[in-house]
Amino acid sequence: MKLPSQRVLAKQLDVNRSTIVAAMDRLVSTGVLEGNSGGGTRVAVVGEEELTLYDSQGDQLVSFPRRHWNGYVEDGIHYPNLPLVQTINKMEFVPHMIRLGTGELSPSLLPEHTMRHLFSEIASSVDTVPLSYEEPLGSLQLRRQLCLEMEQRGINASPSNVLVVSGALQAFQLISAGLLERQSTILLEKPSYLYSIHAFQSAGIRLAGVPMDSEGLQISALTRLKQLRQAVLLYTNPTYHNPTGMVMSEARRTRLLQVCGQIGLPILEDGAYEELWLDHQPPTSLKARDTSGQVLYVGTLSKTVSPGLRIGWIVGSERVIERLADIKMQTDYGSSSVSQLMAYHWLQSGSHQRHMEQLREHLRVRRDVMLELLSQEWHDIATWQQPTGGFYIWVTMKGTFPLHKLFEQALSAGILLNIGTLYDRGSSRQLRLSYAYASIKEMKFAMGKLAQLIRIQGWKS
Amino acid sequence: MKLPSQRVLAKQLDVNRSTIVAAMDRLVSTGVLEGNSGGGTRVAVVGEEELTLYDSQGDQLVSFPRRHWNGYVEDGIHYPNLPLVQTINKMEFVPHMIRLGTGELSPSLLPEHTMRHLFSEIASSVDTVPLSYEEPLGSLQLRRQLCLEMEQRGINASPSNVLVVSGALQAFQLISAGLLERQSTILLEKPSYLYSIHAFQSAGIRLAGVPMDSEGLQISALTRLKQLRQAVLLYTNPTYHNPTGMVMSEARRTRLLQVCGQIGLPILEDGAYEELWLDHQPPTSLKARDTSGQVLYVGTLSKTVSPGLRIGWIVGSERVIERLADIKMQTDYGSSSVSQLMAYHWLQSGSHQRHMEQLREHLRVRRDVMLELLSQEWHDIATWQQPTGGFYIWVTMKGTFPLHKLFEQALSAGILLNIGTLYDRGSSRQLRLSYAYASIKEMKFAMGKLAQLIRIQGWKS
Repeated sequence: MKLPSQRVLAKQLDVNRSTIVAAMDRLVSTGVLEGNSGGGTRVAVVGEEELTLYDSQGDQLVSFPRRHWNGYVEDGIHYPNLPLVQTINKMEFVPHMIRLGTGELSPSLLPEHTMRHLFSEIASSVDTVPLSYEEPLGSLQLRRQLCLEMEQRGINASPSNVLVVSGALQAFQLISAGLLERQSTILLEKPSYLYSIHAFQSAGIRLAGVPMDSEGLQISALTRLKQLRQAVLLYTNPTYHNPTGMVMSEARRTRLLQVCGQIGLPILEDGAYEELWLDHQPPTSLKARDTSGQVLYVGTLSKTVSPGLRIGWIVGSERVIERLADIKMQTDYGSSSVSQLMAYHWLQSGSHQRHMEQLREHLRVRRDVMLELLSQEWHDIATWQQPTGGFYIWVTMKGTFPLHKLFEQALSAGILLNIGTLYDRGSSRQLRLSYAYASIKEMKFAMGKLAQLIRIQGWKS
Repeated sequence: MKLPSQRVLAKQLDVNRSTIVAAMDRLVSTGVLEGNSGGGTRVAVVGEEELTLYDSQGDQLVSFPRRHWNGYVEDGIHYPNLPLVQTINKMEFVPHMIRLGTGELSPSLLPEHTMRHLFSEIASSVDTVPLSYEEPLGSLQLRRQLCLEMEQRGINASPSNVLVVSGALQAFQLISAGLLERQSTILLEKPSYLYSIHAFQSAGIRLAGVPMDSEGLQISALTRLKQLRQAVLLYTNPTYHNPTGMVMSEARRTRLLQVCGQIGLPILEDGAYEELWLDHQPPTSLKARDTSGQVLYVGTLSKTVSPGLRIGWIVGSERVIERLADIKMQTDYGSSSVSQLMAYHWLQSGSHQRHMEQLREHLRVRRDVMLELLSQEWHDIATWQQPTGGFYIWVTMKGTFPLHKLFEQALSAGILLNIGTLYDRGSSRQLRLSYAYASIKEMKFAMGKLAQLIRIQGWKS
């Protein structure tokens, strides 16, 4: 921290300037302050220990506590978010920013009015609103309802196999804190959304990326990496993969389960986007094919209904679910009872099914607009695949223009991008475009503007 | 895991017993199973590596993956809850159990009907229900309202000084993950509720207890321990302390702030019970006296309105609040937007003030009943102090009857107790009684029954 000038300090503290000079000299000589060539003075040390100042006779003048809450901000075992992620998190709240990579539904696609009606209905149909703690696994009526939902996805589960959590991210936190040893390694698709967050890394867990081909993650690389890295589990997002939008093929799913069974690699399946099919239903989940309990499945309402409700769930064996519930209780004593109530009524009333049909319509239109814009304006500068569901188009730029520079230029033009390196350090030529968040008008403006920025910079294709 | 007998297995699997014998022999010879002298057989190894079985020609019979999700339950860096706490957590959901130590309001004291009316009012007064993510610090309208609440407690804060969290427990988790180094030591009152949970310990942080006298924690012990253990912060619950019910005196508060300032020990103040005064308002919080940012304050709605809502908050400097918000975003992307909406309307509508007045009435009656029962039935077997607020009476037994035995006997009689060792290993003669949860009828039955159990066992006073 830089100190004000001697003149300003003298005025502020209402003492002679000579007093300030003397005090500063003493503090500089003890190493608390240091001067710089420009004439400024700054606080030099913020150490662990206390600091005691003595006068020339060796008597104690003052004991100076260094430790203050602010000094702790750099401590702590949890990594801060990546600087780029922190920037994105902040920029998302800047008004009129066009969020072209955001992995959320646009507020206009959230069922806010339906939910308001549900509020009225709940108020008139129930006697009371649950205000006590819920059971450790979550509200029983919600877990029963989730079992019915899972049944529609081909997954057999009873309420004791289901833990209600505050979104998929918390599921990963609980798994990393509750089931994995520090220093263990988990395998995952490369690129992967998990690289952009620290859910596992902050618990001291390492990530090892498995390359993908057109059918999903490569099995040969998987078995090699499992052995090489002594990996303890595979995290996979097989359906409408974040960030590539890819769907793992039927054949790859069968083979993956077989191989993971043989080599003893449990699977953590992220089913966040599974319901968001646009053209045809995707192959059934890995969990639906799992007969021996090798798959732990994570679902969420955040990508389809409401990120704000903070409702997700984990499906697994009773023993694993109980352990995770114990950690959950120690973490936050369970998820909001009001959110659980809303989620139950939302699912049970059939609102969810109706909403999903409308939502797929809207997303289809948005995807097609984005693909059309790509064909029209980006055909010479990038390549991409047509997604069949989810939120994302993974775009590979043809040239060598550095994308972090494009990120900054886009930001100046009011456009927020999610660049490939967030998901894989090696994906320096990729962008994750999302057709879920920005309005169609914004997409049109932003895609044209970006093409222009890229061309002005003389993108070398 | 012990295996069933050969006879039972043969029947279960519908094969000859000789087949079972042969299979077991082979599995014992490869070390998968092991026999014991009593004739039983158990699974011997649950290792890291895979296991492959070969026949007598050396051909591979089967590759046996050892790693399954269930095998991970013992792993993970997070401690499981104390066995006694796990027992209590489970027993709390047994119907008709009398919960004589529970640190929650009885469901009959929760404002469930008022909250249902609030549901209707919100549905008719707002256009939409917020379903998006809230800002990293939490809903702005709620934070503004919390600043007004804080003002009534003498605490000056602006919305950027407030982080909305999912209850006080999560506040501790965020602080331990975000601000403290592994292996650091925090000081706290002894006994303390923090000993009964693992919020800090699971992040590798150590606890060092400071003894208390009638005015609160002892300053001389505090300074000695700070130096001896190189402690990095003091956690304190100065008002209606959990579990003793004590209130730190005015003089002790002043001295504590002074000394902590001098020795450079930041303070984490738990204000969970502050509003629950019964006889007269308590001295103002440490945070209200803090002019230099040395105190981080934690508040919650869980003890006064609803544990199920999962709404708490942290008040601190902007820099600390920002760091904690970043960790919070990485942990669960914020607290439930619906809970935050309910909390805002609850506070803003004045329902909270009205509710608190009624609640204090009810708690006064309950406390007086419990004190009366103690005087009538426990006067010869225990001593206690009269609490002036909060939920708890800290009872010290006069005799030497082991309390964990009383815990079990009480459980058999349908009474769930919170014994002193949960809060301090040395408090083996103490019980935390709560007058907040059980009904008055239950209290009367349970206090009589317990006195009887103690007398039958020949309590030696």
